[in-house]
Amino acid sequence: MPERAKGLIIDLDGTVFRGDSFIPGAADAIRRAAASGRRIVYLSNRGNMDRDAVRKKLSDGGIAADREDILLSSSVAATFLSRYYRRIRVWTLGEEGLREELRLAGVPLADKPEEADWLVISLHERVTYEELNDAFKAARSGARILATNADRSFPRQDGAAIDVAGMIGAITSTTGRPVDIVVGKPGWLMAEAALGRLQLEPDECLVIGDSLESDIALGRMFGMKTALVLTGSTSAAKAEASRHKPDYIWPSIAELGRYLD
Amino acid sequence: MPERAKGLIIDLDGTVFRGDSFIPGAADAIRRAAASGRRIVYLSNRGNMDRDAVRKKLSDGGIAADREDILLSSSVAATFLSRYYRRIRVWTLGEEGLREELRLAGVPLADKPEEADWLVISLHERVTYEELNDAFKAARSGARILATNADRSFPRQDGAAIDVAGMIGAITSTTGRPVDIVVGKPGWLMAEAALGRLQLEPDECLVIGDSLESDIALGRMFGMKTALVLTGSTSAAKAEASRHKPDYIWPSIAELGRYLD
Repeated sequence: MPERAKGLIIDLDGTVFRGDSFIPGAADAIRRAAASGRRIVYLSNRGNMDRDAVRKKLSDGGIAADREDILLSSSVAATFLSRYYRRIRVWTLGEEGLREELRLAGVPLADKPEEADWLVISLHERVTYEELNDAFKAARSGARILATNADRSFPRQDGAAIDVAGMIGAITSTTGRPVDIVVGKPGWLMAEAALGRLQLEPDECLVIGDSLESDIALGRMFGMKTALVLTGSTSAAKAEASRHKPDYIWPSIAELGRYLD
Repeated sequence: MPERAKGLIIDLDGTVFRGDSFIPGAADAIRRAAASGRRIVYLSNRGNMDRDAVRKKLSDGGIAADREDILLSSSVAATFLSRYYRRIRVWTLGEEGLREELRLAGVPLADKPEEADWLVISLHERVTYEELNDAFKAARSGARILATNADRSFPRQDGAAIDVAGMIGAITSTTGRPVDIVVGKPGWLMAEAALGRLQLEPDECLVIGDSLESDIALGRMFGMKTALVLTGSTSAAKAEASRHKPDYIWPSIAELGRYLD
């Protein structure tokens, strides 16, 4: 029997919950994994929530997590900007959770879109025309573009819903400017953040997620073990046909219990 | 002295008005042209207003026009769909003016995005995330895509504002589906609509507009005379550098008076 992973890198949307509903058995399986001494981080391309909001949601579903165990593309983007870019001002096309993470990391927000050095684009489920137009102005005035992720869709209770790629497409196709950095999975910034928190080697980690293109691709690229769950954006047939082959295909994260045995 | 055009094809945004303000001298010049016996149509890539709304706006600015003299990308799109496609249902990403023109042309609207045969995308200055998501669903379910126009920006009182290309970019980049038809200038559907209404040959017509890529390009492509006005999206320097050379460059449409003399 192969050695079981010491660290778990768990995706959220489509893996632990889907909209407001938790995947049956998810909380039990995660609690068992924690009780067995495994280190756990949650790694999500969500850029529109801050970590405290996610922590509260997990807690409501019976899963205890520290804020530092939650790694979102919003918080990883904020850490990146604060670490490598000094004296910048940022404009956001995104929700309050994104701005909260930027504030926590000490990244200054611009007062006007035309003054921004960076435009940070994230999922925005309440986006308005005027917000799109402000982002357009920022990019048109020369702001570099960072996207928290570039997913085309995310699983919502009513089906696949348009994701950050839509916001990005609106801005890049009207300004002719490219995206300079995409933070989210399968990007190296997310992998680095997860490994840094777990303090483990890649081959000691198992990535559990519902997306071949972000979760499984990240795991394989960085030499981690991978488990695809079928509770989100990927069907078994699609998984078979993909070039991103996971080590395991599970009906849901509830299978984690069996894996731990 | 060369013969003066018998018919005028006049753009609206950036040429006759800009936001809620009329270009000084525009109404006078247009009234003089009408009094001289010239036929006039208004040809606009605006897809978010219906013709009655535009007629009222022109009338408020002192310019009398029949509904049939106003050719918008919304009304031309509706005519096109009703003429060539029978038994289709349409979903719109656009404003009430677009739906009004589709109704006037007898084009049925779908009840759900997933049931639509065509998705019609237009400028939507009050677009919401849920509307973007419904359009995403329509395209994802196989609806063909018609865009009233593909302009990147339009002149608003507070500067260039993000236009239909933004809405298009959001949908095409998330669904991977291309736009099947772009109606607006410099497209042939708009030229055909203008010439059909004027009942003139192309070389008897003068196109007056502020955009090299839509107004001047349309005129040159179809063998019309062209006058670029500098009250909208184009500067004199940009006009000099462009491959779309207008026959005339005017500070504003008020110069039309001198042209008529």
